[in-house]
Amino acid sequence: MTEQLRIPGPTPLPDRVVRAMSRPMVDHRGGEFAAVHREVSAGVREVFGTETADVLIVTSSGTGAMESAVANLVSPGDRVIVGTCGVFGDRFADINAAYGAEVTRLSVDWGQPIEEAVLAETLAANPDAKVVFLTHNETSTGLTNHIAKLARVVRDAGRLLVVDAISSASSMDLQMDAWDLDVVLSGSQKGWMSPPGIAFAAVGPRAWEFVERSRSPRFYFDWKSHRTWAEKGFTPSTPAVSTLFAVQEGIRMLREEGLANAFARHRRIADATAAGLFAAGLTLLAREGYRSATVTAAVVPDGIEVEALRKLMRSRHGVIIAGGRGQAKISERIVRVGHLGAIDEGDLVQVLWALEQALEELDHAPADGRTLAAAQPILAGASETVAAH
Amino acid sequence: MTEQLRIPGPTPLPDRVVRAMSRPMVDHRGGEFAAVHREVSAGVREVFGTETADVLIVTSSGTGAMESAVANLVSPGDRVIVGTCGVFGDRFADINAAYGAEVTRLSVDWGQPIEEAVLAETLAANPDAKVVFLTHNETSTGLTNHIAKLARVVRDAGRLLVVDAISSASSMDLQMDAWDLDVVLSGSQKGWMSPPGIAFAAVGPRAWEFVERSRSPRFYFDWKSHRTWAEKGFTPSTPAVSTLFAVQEGIRMLREEGLANAFARHRRIADATAAGLFAAGLTLLAREGYRSATVTAAVVPDGIEVEALRKLMRSRHGVIIAGGRGQAKISERIVRVGHLGAIDEGDLVQVLWALEQALEELDHAPADGRTLAAAQPILAGASETVAAH
Repeated sequence: MTEQLRIPGPTPLPDRVVRAMSRPMVDHRGGEFAAVHREVSAGVREVFGTETADVLIVTSSGTGAMESAVANLVSPGDRVIVGTCGVFGDRFADINAAYGAEVTRLSVDWGQPIEEAVLAETLAANPDAKVVFLTHNETSTGLTNHIAKLARVVRDAGRLLVVDAISSASSMDLQMDAWDLDVVLSGSQKGWMSPPGIAFAAVGPRAWEFVERSRSPRFYFDWKSHRTWAEKGFTPSTPAVSTLFAVQEGIRMLREEGLANAFARHRRIADATAAGLFAAGLTLLAREGYRSATVTAAVVPDGIEVEALRKLMRSRHGVIIAGGRGQAKISERIVRVGHLGAIDEGDLVQVLWALEQALEELDHAPADGRTLAAAQPILAGASETVAAH
Repeated sequence: MTEQLRIPGPTPLPDRVVRAMSRPMVDHRGGEFAAVHREVSAGVREVFGTETADVLIVTSSGTGAMESAVANLVSPGDRVIVGTCGVFGDRFADINAAYGAEVTRLSVDWGQPIEEAVLAETLAANPDAKVVFLTHNETSTGLTNHIAKLARVVRDAGRLLVVDAISSASSMDLQMDAWDLDVVLSGSQKGWMSPPGIAFAAVGPRAWEFVERSRSPRFYFDWKSHRTWAEKGFTPSTPAVSTLFAVQEGIRMLREEGLANAFARHRRIADATAAGLFAAGLTLLAREGYRSATVTAAVVPDGIEVEALRKLMRSRHGVIIAGGRGQAKISERIVRVGHLGAIDEGDLVQVLWALEQALEELDHAPADGRTLAAAQPILAGASETVAAH
């Protein structure tokens, strides 16, 4: 049985990506590497929607990219605002605290978004907070903040905005320049269809002014050093070369599909997932209108144990979904289906089928096809693609 | 023409490692991952020669592991001693300086080792320096410090010792417990026969006391967080899973060969390289008795341009060797041959052949087989292996 890994990252690797990753090793200070570096940088710039930012390629998880933002922008004692809707917003707050920042947490209940009015109030109440950290897509709750609108609030207040787009970039629309975002972060194991190990930080002009002033220690994550080397097509220390080969191929696949088509595919599959889970008796966690295109979180029905459900889905049907994350009580009652990167309609059908079967096996409800019936009309929109470039 | 990548890391990947890296992605919070993590940790412990240290697996280059040592052990204003014989010793000093440490650099000329007497004097002159940073194998000069002896000096003075074994561990003898080293670092792209992207930090009992006291900010590289997760077979944030598959296979290959055999192979090939380069008219950089088993650095003959030589060796003969590193004037006059990880006698013969051919093409000397004649008796020792376990 070939297993289906449907957690919100790492994601399954397409054969093309695996083959690319298997290319012979190259000198990380040679011309072949520089060509890969330049192509990936250009691809990230396109996916992020920026012509003005510097793209930095870091060998780390997304958390490393998050830390790089804090270390390069924030000095000990600085006041910062962190909007948090879940585990990864909390992580941004924790990293800031580790660096000695005075952190104002704008926390909302799990499943709820950061709203513009509340953010505006928080900004007004903290005029000394120069940097704002927001999560585009909160992986722990399956919620996407309306970052374009929030960015306008931050801009109107004259603050710097750092956006964790780790699990959104390349799977949903992101316009760094048009939305006026100062720093955008992502990671290879999400929509980029690559293994984990490479992270991206795009750093805009206003952010560089903060970099000049930050007194926090940094070396491996030092953005100025990264920028200097990136201009020559290199990284300051030895990068994850094979993983970068994978990212290069993942970006080529995205370009062939067309970004708009990839975004539409993610949205369509997300909506079908939500309809299927709801039909199966689960309660969607994220507020309607803010449901993520890359991960769906849902509360399991009373009487169902999350771990028993996950175990059945895997052992009998070969489908691996995620449980909850974080300390909150709610995390023990939710499952999360990752539908990002290399996923198509048929993959999602298999997830819903396994869920319905497992729920019958747990005596919850008969497997009568209700989840697929709910998902089918939405998946049927698959043929409506836009022209790829 | 299949090219031979003979730089001191990244190294060529054996087919077995490439196949292992191509395994389907797994959940980084699941049992399969924990099994890989445990096997790799046990392998690193064996290679490092330690039963008492905690092995931490970090997704970064070796430089990230170096920074993790500084961030977890050193607070701003602390006095530290850094022994530096080249680029990577300087890097340890630079990282310490970035973290606000007061750095006493014990610098020696390129090609020279750190000597026990000088280290003892430096320790005596700096009684407030609690942590000492040393490079086991200095990749920029092809020099191996006698770390066992230096460690005794550090121990006698009651200081903590951090050893950069990035380009030595798994290729030459290293006995963390027997030599009483407190922290040992390495990286996947060296003798481990894997792509870059994973680094190791082994942290001994005395070092953990320093970790408790360090006030330097850290999150991604926080050793306590890494230790907590490592006990369950995981990492704090998403690791470079595919690269870890590669490391797992690389360690299996090392075990099959037997560590003592792998060390002997590296030594034999290094000695043959030195003999060949000397016969070809190059001058070995490292002092005799301190020549590295993983990389040989040598000054090219007068009248030969390093870049012209490297270009010819690659374009006509498919062999890629490295030039010098660092700002020192000497680096422009040296070549470095990497002979670590997946390399056997035949590979080295190809390097020497290409060098001799290229030197003839540059009108330096006739290609009369002098390099191979010098190397041959040493390579002939290949059959003397010890029993693998």
